Amino acid sequence: MKGGSIELGEVSKNASKRKGVKRGLSIMDFILRIIGGVATLSSAVAMATTNERLPFATNFVQFRAEYDDLPSFVFFVMANSLVCGYLALSLILSILHIVRSTAVKSRILLIILDTVMMGLLAAAASAAASIVYIAHYGNTQANWFPICQQYNSFCERISGSLIGSYIAVALFVIIILLSHVAISRN
Amino acid sequence: MKGGSIELGEVSKNASKRKGVKRGLSIMDFILRIIGGVATLSSAVAMATTNERLPFATNFVQFRAEYDDLPSFVFFVMANSLVCGYLALSLILSILHIVRSTAVKSRILLIILDTVMMGLLAAAASAAASIVYIAHYGNTQANWFPICQQYNSFCERISGSLIGSYIAVALFVIIILLSHVAISRN
Repeated sequence: MKGGSIELGEVSKNASKRKGVKRGLSIMDFILRIIGGVATLSSAVAMATTNERLPFATNFVQFRAEYDDLPSFVFFVMANSLVCGYLALSLILSILHIVRSTAVKSRILLIILDTVMMGLLAAAASAAASIVYIAHYGNTQANWFPICQQYNSFCERISGSLIGSYIAVALFVIIILLSHVAISRN
Repeated sequence: MKGGSIELGEVSKNASKRKGVKRGLSIMDFILRIIGGVATLSSAVAMATTNERLPFATNFVQFRAEYDDLPSFVFFVMANSLVCGYLALSLILSILHIVRSTAVKSRILLIILDTVMMGLLAAAASAAASIVYIAHYGNTQANWFPICQQYNSFCERISGSLIGSYIAVALFVIIILLSHVAISRN
């Protein structure tokens, strides 16, 4: 209200500085989304392609281990594919945020979708992880035998495919955090 | 900048209306947190107390089914207890938001913590659910037998305890959504 030309100059300087910070955050958001997309894609592919390899690798033709024998693994592949597709689509909004750094509503929309996707991915990764644990160590109380003693390469693949999912969950936490920082700087 | 007394009056009217809406949102947030806390507490208790009952109920003294036989169930109980404790503590901030509806930073802090807790709870619920599924239906490929044929009441309890967790996950989504609406109305 008591604006002079000097103060106005400082305000616009501050505003452009803020804009620069927000643009930096948006670019980081963009990069993290690409990494997350690659991570979930590799998880989905690693899990989904295991069914083709094993019979030849271990010669258990009558006892084939395929990812779709277990519903948790099917859920894992579906969730990772969905999140990968979502991350690819969200890049459009992410680019919009780099260009127009003052957008708030689209940021909030993205945060909410990010939150839901993070929950879905965390659920899928944990569901698969708990089955992988049983596959590795079995359970004596329930008389579930550790199938990894027979299906070595299958178990290695499914264990490895979890990593990408958990990396993506961690990236989502960072992405959501960055979005909040960007919004609170308005 | 060209404020007249009529416009100023409308602005303050709008502001008080906004304040009322935000207070309503904060009160809803408070109620949802209490329901979520009760849901996670009952989940944790239902899962954790199963180990005491079964031996007497089914007379399988040598084959006792306890929740801590399976690491996924231990994780489930721990995550639910943690989230319940968090929800109880978050009520303090929630009350603060009812009293001071313009607070933004504490809202963002709460949203970020909510997001992490939602991820944790979704992970725990899904990890337990995938084991419950195996317990119910087994898996012929992996030679895992459905233990629910023997442990009836144990299976009923652990299946029921999942409900509270999933309700709490759904409540978290609503809570996060409401917080975003409250912030965007600033």
